[in-house]
Amino acid sequence: MAGDPRVRLASEEDADVLARMQIEFNAEFDDDSAPEHEVLAQRMRDYIASGEMYFLLAGDGPDGHAQIALHPTLYSPDREAYLGELWVRPEKRGLGLGRAMLEEAMEEARRRGCDHFHITTSMDDDEARALYESAGFTNKEGSPDGPLMIYYERDL
Amino acid sequence: MAGDPRVRLASEEDADVLARMQIEFNAEFDDDSAPEHEVLAQRMRDYIASGEMYFLLAGDGPDGHAQIALHPTLYSPDREAYLGELWVRPEKRGLGLGRAMLEEAMEEARRRGCDHFHITTSMDDDEARALYESAGFTNKEGSPDGPLMIYYERDL
Repeated sequence: MAGDPRVRLASEEDADVLARMQIEFNAEFDDDSAPEHEVLAQRMRDYIASGEMYFLLAGDGPDGHAQIALHPTLYSPDREAYLGELWVRPEKRGLGLGRAMLEEAMEEARRRGCDHFHITTSMDDDEARALYESAGFTNKEGSPDGPLMIYYERDL
Repeated sequence: MAGDPRVRLASEEDADVLARMQIEFNAEFDDDSAPEHEVLAQRMRDYIASGEMYFLLAGDGPDGHAQIALHPTLYSPDREAYLGELWVRPEKRGLGLGRAMLEEAMEEARRRGCDHFHITTSMDDDEARALYESAGFTNKEGSPDGPLMIYYERDL
């Protein structure tokens, strides 16, 4: 299946653009947890180089980005993929860029040998949940009637 | 803070014991997704050697085990920790082994430079949720009044 031509895999040379997108994304949610630009760009370059993460860019602006990390797992010979962020600039929403990046994120994960993909989101993000559910993701454990799967976290 | 003397960090030499524990654990939940013993033990040895995962054993049987994977993150100079499994043999429950492993899992993550720890579980696992919540984990996004954080997955 050919991918959406508006979406491309980012290279190390895109790290500055990716870092700017991340900072813009964090600002939309008043989230000050991200590191400063140069630290972020360097981590992105390092993880792209090592293959532990990959990033997608969408549109000419670019207008959106996605971050995917590869995690060790015992259930597969290869790593599994985790979508850390998926974001489209507010004025570019509704054009299918989010869905196109999600599909390309899964396709790239398959190319890298992954057989499992996971995501966390919040219960009240109806738009994200509708996208994930229509793309074949489930938040029920074991079966469609299973209990809701939930996420816990803490700082150390 | 001294750790619980019943809990120890597993080494590569423990891979066979760890694989047996995992298979016993999967059997309790009628889960046939785990690979066969030797494949599992080899993956465990490889991930212990590379430092991408660590494992804890509790009690003399041993009576419980925990699996922790280290994930790339842009928000920290080091990786973040994810508790994949935490399991105590049915006849050894109620003795605090689960809590002792969870505390040691966090302590070992701090030693490895992690500043964030996360877990997924199901909404109906009251025992696990009570343990995580009493150990300082939250399943609310942003603040104690925030929306529930949920987990989505799919095979590729």
